[in-house]
Amino acid sequence: MEPWRTGITTSDAKSIYIRGYEVASLMRQATFTDIVFLLHQARLPSKEERSLFDAILIGVSDHGAEAPSAAAARIVASGNRRSLEAAVAAGVLAMGDAHGGAASDCMQMIADGIAAARAQGVPLQEAAGRVAEDAKAQRRRLPGIGHRVHTEDPRTRVLFEMAGAYGVARDGVAFMQALEAAARERIRPLPINIDGAMAAVLHDLGFAPAVGRRVFIIGRVTGVTAHVMEEHVREKPMRVRFPVSYDGPPPRKIG
Amino acid sequence: MEPWRTGITTSDAKSIYIRGYEVASLMRQATFTDIVFLLHQARLPSKEERSLFDAILIGVSDHGAEAPSAAAARIVASGNRRSLEAAVAAGVLAMGDAHGGAASDCMQMIADGIAAARAQGVPLQEAAGRVAEDAKAQRRRLPGIGHRVHTEDPRTRVLFEMAGAYGVARDGVAFMQALEAAARERIRPLPINIDGAMAAVLHDLGFAPAVGRRVFIIGRVTGVTAHVMEEHVREKPMRVRFPVSYDGPPPRKIG
Amino acid sequence: MEPWRTGITTSDAKSIYIRGYEVASLMRQATFTDIVFLLHQARLPSKEERSLFDAILIGVSDHGAEAPSAAAARIVASGNRRSLEAAVAAGVLAMGDAHGGAASDCMQMIADGIAAARAQGVPLQEAAGRVAEDAKAQRRRLPGIGHRVHTEDPRTRVLFEMAGAYGVARDGVAFMQALEAAARERIRPLPINIDGAMAAVLHDLGFAPAVGRRVFIIGRVTGVTAHVMEEHVREKPMRVRFPVSYDGPPPRKIG
Amino acid sequence: MEPWRTGITTSDAKSIYIRGYEVASLMRQATFTDIVFLLHQARLPSKEERSLFDAILIGVSDHGAEAPSAAAARIVASGNRRSLEAAVAAGVLAMGDAHGGAASDCMQMIADGIAAARAQGVPLQEAAGRVAEDAKAQRRRLPGIGHRVHTEDPRTRVLFEMAGAYGVARDGVAFMQALEAAARERIRPLPINIDGAMAAVLHDLGFAPAVGRRVFIIGRVTGVTAHVMEEHVREKPMRVRFPVSYDGPPPRKIG
Repeated sequence: MEPWRTGITTSDAKSIYIRGYEVASLMRQATFTDIVFLLHQARLPSKEERSLFDAILIGVSDHGAEAPSAAAARIVASGNRRSLEAAVAAGVLAMGDAHGGAASDCMQMIADGIAAARAQGVPLQEAAGRVAEDAKAQRRRLPGIGHRVHTEDPRTRVLFEMAGAYGVARDGVAFMQALEAAARERIRPLPINIDGAMAAVLHDLGFAPAVGRRVFIIGRVTGVTAHVMEEHVREKPMRVRFPVSYDGPPPRKIG
Repeated sequence: MEPWRTGITTSDAKSIYIRGYEVASLMRQATFTDIVFLLHQARLPSKEERSLFDAILIGVSDHGAEAPSAAAARIVASGNRRSLEAAVAAGVLAMGDAHGGAASDCMQMIADGIAAARAQGVPLQEAAGRVAEDAKAQRRRLPGIGHRVHTEDPRTRVLFEMAGAYGVARDGVAFMQALEAAARERIRPLPINIDGAMAAVLHDLGFAPAVGRRVFIIGRVTGVTAHVMEEHVREKPMRVRFPVSYDGPPPRKIG
Repeated sequence: MEPWRTGITTSDAKSIYIRGYEVASLMRQATFTDIVFLLHQARLPSKEERSLFDAILIGVSDHGAEAPSAAAARIVASGNRRSLEAAVAAGVLAMGDAHGGAASDCMQMIADGIAAARAQGVPLQEAAGRVAEDAKAQRRRLPGIGHRVHTEDPRTRVLFEMAGAYGVARDGVAFMQALEAAARERIRPLPINIDGAMAAVLHDLGFAPAVGRRVFIIGRVTGVTAHVMEEHVREKPMRVRFPVSYDGPPPRKIG
Repeated sequence: MEPWRTGITTSDAKSIYIRGYEVASLMRQATFTDIVFLLHQARLPSKEERSLFDAILIGVSDHGAEAPSAAAARIVASGNRRSLEAAVAAGVLAMGDAHGGAASDCMQMIADGIAAARAQGVPLQEAAGRVAEDAKAQRRRLPGIGHRVHTEDPRTRVLFEMAGAYGVARDGVAFMQALEAAARERIRPLPINIDGAMAAVLHDLGFAPAVGRRVFIIGRVTGVTAHVMEEHVREKPMRVRFPVSYDGPPPRKIG
């Protein structure tokens, strides 16, 4: 069997090395957020990058028991009291396209939009305008903007202020702001949500689109473990009941 | 349907509140590690607690592609290119009793050992000695000590030095050091491993035994996402092959 | 790397052999239920054994959308439209101790009870009586008896009638009937439920206790896939909403 | 909370009804394969349909320990001895696009190919020829044909013979045979594999493309449970080792 190649972590009799750094040194001198960055970007972040990455991970860490990831984890925890890992994994599995997937979709849209602007030699505003028009014509939702509850997402403002203050904001943030303006004009007011804000900032931090979903999962797992803890500590097994209405065939005989 | 009770996170039209703190304030003023602590302990950590918690999360974040969690995630990623969440969930599922479960088992042993010492009015050294003797008599492995590779785990030294310097080390650390000494005397030299070190420190930080596994999962998920990223970026689908030797019944006919 | 040993399935350039039988012959001459039996028992069932095994798999295949496995799968399907496997896996993860675990627990109780009767040279009735008394004294629920809804589980009657008619019923069925009688006398009327009935019959078919949970999972997976299908076909993404009531700390400031 | 709608299963104080049939009657008169069909097609199969469905489920039930689903399940079982459901779920998660996904992709291709033939009023042979040419021009693999090991898949022959003998074979089987002939002529000999054969037959049985993956998962779960059983019974915890070669950065200092 050919050996598995990896460039992430190695170890010898003395220590473990993550991306070349001795784990003992990292434990003394780095934060966990640095290690998340290091594992996915192969270098340690600057102080400003770390603060932004912290803010993103915090921004996605939890938004309540009714999120599909928390709900799925709690229902599994309700039928399965012995396996913490089963409940957490079910929470991870709920983080699909419709819950937690928007950040990567939005990062792809940003990367494509900026590439189109460059290829055609037009300003970002124009490229963003076309994206909004296409979405309107095709009656397609744009990832990263719009919100069920908030008219302005407080998390977006924090991320963009920090990205501006730290000199990190570049084309990604500019594109999303242009898209928000274009949507307001051509569709309706659609505030940039946390997925869109983190997508813009992760783009400007140099991450590939696929990283958006990874960061969402890493940040949200800790919310999920807290919900599983609460379910196990405060609730009885099998406590979850749903009202169900049956609309299938009436009783019938075989044959 | 009765509403689900939760004391973790709530939201209104203006913001999201995690354990009562507005998420926007947390994004500006806290680190992700603070939020992991807050979600599971219902308060923010002190500066020293945060550093120790960072060191623990870093210490368990990855130890290479051959760990069951990384291996399971990579094999799933190899057969399943579209679903990041499936590969990550498989990695979480590998974190069972034999991989990642020792921290909680060890925290339970520490809590029981300290309680026994108090109940019987004996020093921790004596309680630890009895635990070692019982394990020897029953030929049972003790959680948190012993190591396949290292004669001293560098991560243990770092955690215990930090816990000492920050004034966090208390009975948990003392009990594990007493157990290591007792094992050296009565069984054989068995260094405190990362599971044992994090168990001791988490105990002294006031966490319940079940938190050990949660912290392991939260810390290791980020290693798993990095391995899945590497698998998807560098390897072909279905690339994993194992040498298999069949020892079942030879070809036979039905009936 | 040492090869993995397996006695289950092998293949050559011409065919695949399951427990020694060519898969093409099995496809022509056997039923899927035969193969479930073959894979876990290493021999093909008799006609009577097959009918009982069919009845057991049917008996556990589904009992509605509100079962934790169906509910967890549907919530994952609601947040994750692209990954069938994620939703099904979440359903499997909900099959823990409290949902689907009773069959194995009951098979263990049956095996222990019969062994105790033999060791002590007492009739099964007496051994079952002691089990009921112990449970009552320790205020412990007995696996395999009792029901939230039914006063008699129709599935139990079918399985026991078939096991009797086919000459399969032996000590397992006898023990559970004795336990039901003992519970009626000493605790209260507690009908044998499907977990208890399948446990009795699987015991009499020669299966080890751990097989109970496997059979439950195999049978219920098909119910789960049907619920996921219905969710994807009939419902919108993210449609599941729970009423949530927050009882955590009120809004507060950091520091 | 609005009730969940379902047309699959309901129950009252007396019984459970699957698609309208009382479960007790199904247990007496039907096979498990009938119930898989019933749950996904909302009617019971004919005798011939049942035999074909049995053959399909058997054909995908296992092909050895090295399949990603079995391998992932065994690695999880190796690190997690307590949770059967965790290992089985990991096996399910490995059934993605590259492993088990071909049947649905192939069913979609068949449905599209037949629709195109009808829309253009050309014979299936011509439509299949175009599909093969397009795939060649775009250097794309065709789902359902080609094999790593076999020059003819014995399972395909069995399914097609049975479908012919039972009068089930229609456009689906004809399209796949035309595609195989077209590929032989224009690309190279590419035998119809089990995914392609089951796709053809499931199409002719009236199933929607998405059902292909569901049937694969239902059939393969029983192979996965058998591999997990073997791992737990015959192997030690944490026994799986991979040869790993590290090609990342050499040891380096922080800062």
